[in-house]
Amino acid sequence: MSDPTLLATAYLSRVAEPPCPQLAALVARVGPVEAADKVKRRAVEGPLLRLTEARHQIDCAADDLAVMARLGGRLVTAADDEWPLLAFASFRGIDTKQRPEAHPPLALWVIGSLRLDEIAERAAAIVGTRASTTYGEHVAGELAAGLAERDVAVVSGGAYGIDGAAHRAALAADGLTAAVLAGGMDVSYPAGHAALLQRIREAGLIVTEYPPGLRPQRHRFLTRNRLVAALSGATVVVEAGARSGAANTAAWAHALGRGVCAVPGPVTSSASVGCHVLVRGGAILVTRADEVVEQVGHAGELAADPARPTSPLDGLADDERRVYEAFPARGARTVDEIAVGSGLPPTQVLGPLSMLEIAGLVVCHGGRWKLALR
Amino acid sequence: MSDPTLLATAYLSRVAEPPCPQLAALVARVGPVEAADKVKRRAVEGPLLRLTEARHQIDCAADDLAVMARLGGRLVTAADDEWPLLAFASFRGIDTKQRPEAHPPLALWVIGSLRLDEIAERAAAIVGTRASTTYGEHVAGELAAGLAERDVAVVSGGAYGIDGAAHRAALAADGLTAAVLAGGMDVSYPAGHAALLQRIREAGLIVTEYPPGLRPQRHRFLTRNRLVAALSGATVVVEAGARSGAANTAAWAHALGRGVCAVPGPVTSSASVGCHVLVRGGAILVTRADEVVEQVGHAGELAADPARPTSPLDGLADDERRVYEAFPARGARTVDEIAVGSGLPPTQVLGPLSMLEIAGLVVCHGGRWKLALR
Repeated sequence: MSDPTLLATAYLSRVAEPPCPQLAALVARVGPVEAADKVKRRAVEGPLLRLTEARHQIDCAADDLAVMARLGGRLVTAADDEWPLLAFASFRGIDTKQRPEAHPPLALWVIGSLRLDEIAERAAAIVGTRASTTYGEHVAGELAAGLAERDVAVVSGGAYGIDGAAHRAALAADGLTAAVLAGGMDVSYPAGHAALLQRIREAGLIVTEYPPGLRPQRHRFLTRNRLVAALSGATVVVEAGARSGAANTAAWAHALGRGVCAVPGPVTSSASVGCHVLVRGGAILVTRADEVVEQVGHAGELAADPARPTSPLDGLADDERRVYEAFPARGARTVDEIAVGSGLPPTQVLGPLSMLEIAGLVVCHGGRWKLALR
Repeated sequence: MSDPTLLATAYLSRVAEPPCPQLAALVARVGPVEAADKVKRRAVEGPLLRLTEARHQIDCAADDLAVMARLGGRLVTAADDEWPLLAFASFRGIDTKQRPEAHPPLALWVIGSLRLDEIAERAAAIVGTRASTTYGEHVAGELAAGLAERDVAVVSGGAYGIDGAAHRAALAADGLTAAVLAGGMDVSYPAGHAALLQRIREAGLIVTEYPPGLRPQRHRFLTRNRLVAALSGATVVVEAGARSGAANTAAWAHALGRGVCAVPGPVTSSASVGCHVLVRGGAILVTRADEVVEQVGHAGELAADPARPTSPLDGLADDERRVYEAFPARGARTVDEIAVGSGLPPTQVLGPLSMLEIAGLVVCHGGRWKLALR
């Protein structure tokens, strides 16, 4: 990649909150250098004009690349050999125009000596709640060590709890591990994992969609989760409460056609509730690394379905449809009200709601849900 | 039922090891009184002559009925109003001629003030290993109490461990509970459960296919398991080791078209291994009584499949077929050898083997398995 292309890509990586499908479409049409030039000159139209309004004058691309070079990292795009095969083209039953997150990243900031595509070719995500138990951390560690022994890379989010236990065990077993961050490379988050992230940089791979300096934010964690799922042949949820972000990663894995696995635990443990909900919803129960390896196929682009759904509703599972149909045409509802309307227990409503949210069919504001405007 | 009919039925209940489909066929054709007379006079042919050879001269029917009357019990047959709808007519993909156990009982010895059909109409089996953990007993108790609250009868085998915990909790919650024994009514087995069985007699129901005096034997436990499954809309395995009899009950429930549920536990607990194998094989993961109630439909006779399999192999699941095909035409194999041959892990071979054994396709002698002669 020539310097002008790199500079343009670094600029584009910051100018709109990623992922931005409108920006990706422009880059695909005219290339990064001309795309960056058009954005700077405000020679863009429609939504892209608005989406790049706030940051179009910020051009710290040279600084960003310098920070990255100092950290020993690189900026990778689909033009690079190591760009992994992600599965966004086969997104299940989702109108991708509704949800920018349902699109691949424009570029990835990467640190580490491993190649992104080699990691993604044989990887499993090990994810779970930050509020993990000793049991969950033990199992996460056993799974990660077992995967490392079988040359399966362990992808996770670098968070406290299950994520950290998985990364640590993979490192301890001399295995491959990649942490996908929800902020810039130079922002050590969480702070208590600065040393762990440093070790992953040295022995594994750190990946993020965000340019240097950007801090993790709530929506960035959710957007990051899709990359964890997309880089992995299967996602394993080790422990998850009823409303854990890990269930969100699992929903992305499902939407991307990747394996969804969950580790069982005591039914008396609130940290396993989300895992049991996932298994009841069709996730594969796994108890050891061998069973995860079965699910980690070649993480290549899946063939497009021969018959694509013509309506986003076509792709919904029964429970999702049932929950969707429980919504009134107008007005917001609580989870409990939706449970009553759908005839499903409240705990069984959360999974379908999460899928409907990803599908862009419903939105949540202040704890209440309503149909998205279409 | 008139006295001669009762006496004849009691005689028939003992004269052949139940269940005996040949004897049942004779009774269906000529009625119990003439059937008993024919057996006594050796006016029967073929297999039935052999099957009744050992005991045809033992006529303690009057004594058996007297013992039963003293205990406050009764002998129930399909001619009685309270005979439950069992699901043997819809046995899945099994050549019932190969396996006498795949047939309904000729008669049931019953003690308790509840009606058999009322119990079976809304019942769940709660079963599991005798080598249970505190966790398993706690969950069995919670499930049984929750079922009792929802007017679902708790059926189990009266054994130590999970069975006992389930019966006790159902009794404590003033719920309905039935124990299905593997020996005669007057044989308190296990001995340490004499007081518990007495309480079930008083407040619930004790059921057995075996006449007074018969002691539980290994094959009778397996035969009994089918009745536990048949009397219940769903079977819930709470804890089971890799080779627990509870998995056998679950296999019967599957074969009878009844719900098969399993409770998850720590993957580090050997007492939960069998449950996790069941869920991976398609059993429904359950964590609380509500989820069991969902599975307890009307325990009526299921409609026969529109297209019955023409070969016993047609009804096999993929794993079962894979295990079956790993057998040589002649000669016995260990589980590990079958695992190698089928390409499945040894733990995943046991479930299919159990189903194949029930289907009469394979037999086990001294820890080695071979194809059954057909």
